[in-house]
Amino acid sequence: MTAELISGTRTAQETLTWARELVEPGLRAAVAQLPPSMRPVAAHHFGWTDGGGSGKAMRPALVLLAAQAVGAPAERALPAAAAVELVHDFSLVHDDVMDGDATRRHRATVWKEFGTSTAILAGDALLALATRLLAERPDELRALLTAVLDLIEGQSADLAFERRETVGADECRAMAAGKTGALLGCACALGALAGGGSPAQVARLRAFGKEVGLAFQFADDLLGIWGEPAVTGKPVYSDLRNRKKSLPVVAALASDTGEGRELAALYRKPGTLSAPELARAAELVERAGGRAWSRAPADELLARARTQLRALEPKPRAELEALAQLITRRDH
Amino acid sequence: MTAELISGTRTAQETLTWARELVEPGLRAAVAQLPPSMRPVAAHHFGWTDGGGSGKAMRPALVLLAAQAVGAPAERALPAAAAVELVHDFSLVHDDVMDGDATRRHRATVWKEFGTSTAILAGDALLALATRLLAERPDELRALLTAVLDLIEGQSADLAFERRETVGADECRAMAAGKTGALLGCACALGALAGGGSPAQVARLRAFGKEVGLAFQFADDLLGIWGEPAVTGKPVYSDLRNRKKSLPVVAALASDTGEGRELAALYRKPGTLSAPELARAAELVERAGGRAWSRAPADELLARARTQLRALEPKPRAELEALAQLITRRDH
Repeated sequence: MTAELISGTRTAQETLTWARELVEPGLRAAVAQLPPSMRPVAAHHFGWTDGGGSGKAMRPALVLLAAQAVGAPAERALPAAAAVELVHDFSLVHDDVMDGDATRRHRATVWKEFGTSTAILAGDALLALATRLLAERPDELRALLTAVLDLIEGQSADLAFERRETVGADECRAMAAGKTGALLGCACALGALAGGGSPAQVARLRAFGKEVGLAFQFADDLLGIWGEPAVTGKPVYSDLRNRKKSLPVVAALASDTGEGRELAALYRKPGTLSAPELARAAELVERAGGRAWSRAPADELLARARTQLRALEPKPRAELEALAQLITRRDH
Repeated sequence: MTAELISGTRTAQETLTWARELVEPGLRAAVAQLPPSMRPVAAHHFGWTDGGGSGKAMRPALVLLAAQAVGAPAERALPAAAAVELVHDFSLVHDDVMDGDATRRHRATVWKEFGTSTAILAGDALLALATRLLAERPDELRALLTAVLDLIEGQSADLAFERRETVGADECRAMAAGKTGALLGCACALGALAGGGSPAQVARLRAFGKEVGLAFQFADDLLGIWGEPAVTGKPVYSDLRNRKKSLPVVAALASDTGEGRELAALYRKPGTLSAPELARAAELVERAGGRAWSRAPADELLARARTQLRALEPKPRAELEALAQLITRRDH
C-alpha cells in the first residue's frame, strides 16, 4: 500500500469476499425473477447447485469501490453491481457457446450441461435481468448498454481473428479493450455515477477500469496457456486447444521467427491437437517471445491505472489499487 | 367496420404501411448505433440490402394505434414502437438459430448467411438496442423486459415440446401465449403507457393485444403447414419439416385417432422427411382434426379481443379492430 492513498482496511481478497457477500442477495433476488425454466440454468452457472466455485465478484467489487471513491456508501451502487455481474454472466454463457468451451469455474458450461438452445435463452434472460435492475437509472443503464455493445464488438472481432491467418498485435489489443476493458471501465463508471460523482470523477474512474481491464486480459491470456487448471477452472492449455488468437499467441505468430512459423503450422493443422502438440505450442509461444511480450503491457497498464487513481480527488482508499493489482497479476 | 367504433380512415394494410413508414427512421437510427460488425447483419435481417421483404410492422402498428386509442398522437409512442420491433427481431434471429430455420422473409436467415456465432451476437445487440431506446421511460422499459422474459419462457417450452413424445393442447396454448401473446399484449400496453393512458386503459389494451397475439399464433401455425411459400417466405410444410409441435400438430397427435398415430410415427422417424411424407403428414393433421381445431379458437380469441376494444373509453378508431382481423385471418 502506498502513502499517497488513504489506507484501506481490507486486503484485495477480503474486498472480493465483501463485494460477493454484498451483491449476492441482489443476484439471487434477480434470478428468482427469471422464468421457471431458466432458474436452474442460472443456478448451475452461478454455482449455487453444486457448492462449486462461483465468480470472483471482481466487477461488483469495482462498482462498489468506485462508489466509495466518490464519497458514497457502497450500498447505493448495489443495483449497478448486480447488473454488471449479470452482464458479465450473460456474455460468458453466450461466449462459451460460440467458443465451444466445455468447462468453466470447474464445471460444465451451460451449453454443455443443458444444450446450446437453452444456453442462448439463458444468456438472453440474464441480459434482460441486468437491464431491468437499472430501469430507474437511465444514466447507468445507458452506460451499461454501451458496454454491452462494446463487448459484442470485441467478441465479434475475436471470432473473426480465429478465421484469419494473420492478426496484428494492435488490432488484437483493440479487441481485448472491447472485450474486457469496456465492462471493467463501465463497472467503475457505474459505481461513480451511482455514487453521484462528478463527470470528471466518472471519466477518471472509467479510464482506471479500462486500463485494469486490458491489463487483466493480458494476464488472463497468459493463464489461458500457462494457468493451472486448479486455478483457472479450465483444462490445461485451454486457449491453445481452441486455437484462440489470444494476445501472446498473436505476438508469437507475428514474430517472424522459426518458432512463430512452427506455431502457425500447428494452428493450421486439421483435427484436435495432441497433448505433446499442445505442450510444444506453449513452448513455441514462449520461445517466439509471446509470453514476455504479454507481461510488459500488463505492468505498464497497471501503472497507468494507478496514475488515474492518484489524480482522483479526494484520494480513494487503497482498496481499488490493491484490487487492481490482484486482478492483473495472477499466478503466471 | 362496426358502428360502435369511431370510424377510421385507413384500411388495415394502409395502417401497416403507415406504421412501417413512421417507425423505420427510428429503426435505421438505432441500427446505425450498432457496433460496425453488426450493422450489415442487421441490414440483411431487415431487408435493407437486397430490396427483399422486410417485416410487416404489425407490432409497431399496434403500439402506435394503442397510443391513439388513449388520445395521444402516435408519435409519442415511436420509441416504444421501434423497441418492440427490435425485440421481435432479436427473438427471430435467436429462434432461427435454435430451430435451425434457414429461410425467413424470402431470404437466408442470419445464422445461415453469417454463421451461428454472428447470429447470437446480432440478436444480443438488437436486444441491447431495444432496451436503450426506452432508457428514459422506466415503466415502458419494465413492461418490455417482462415481455422479453415471457418470450424466453415460451421459446423454452416450445423447444422442450419438440423433445417430448406427447404435449397437451392446453400447455401448447400456454406456450403460444408466452411466445406471441406476451409481445403483442406488451405492444398495446406500451402504446397506452406512452400515450399517458390510465391503468385501466393500459390493462384493457394489453388484454386485447394478448388475445390478438394468441389468435395470430393459431393462424400462423396453420400457415406453417398450409401457407404458400410466396406468402410466408418459408419453404412449403415448413413446420412439419422441422417436426414442430405446433398447435394443429399437437391437436392431431392428441386426437387418439389412427391418423394421429400415423402422424406420431412420421414425427418419430429418423432422418429428413421426403416430399410425399410431408404431404401425407399435412393430410394426417387435417384428417385428425388439427386444422379445424386450430381455426375455432382463432375466431373465439378475435371475438374476445373485440370485446376488450368495445369496453374501452373513449371508443378507439376502427383501425385497431381492422388490424386485429388482418393479422389473425390470413390466407389459410
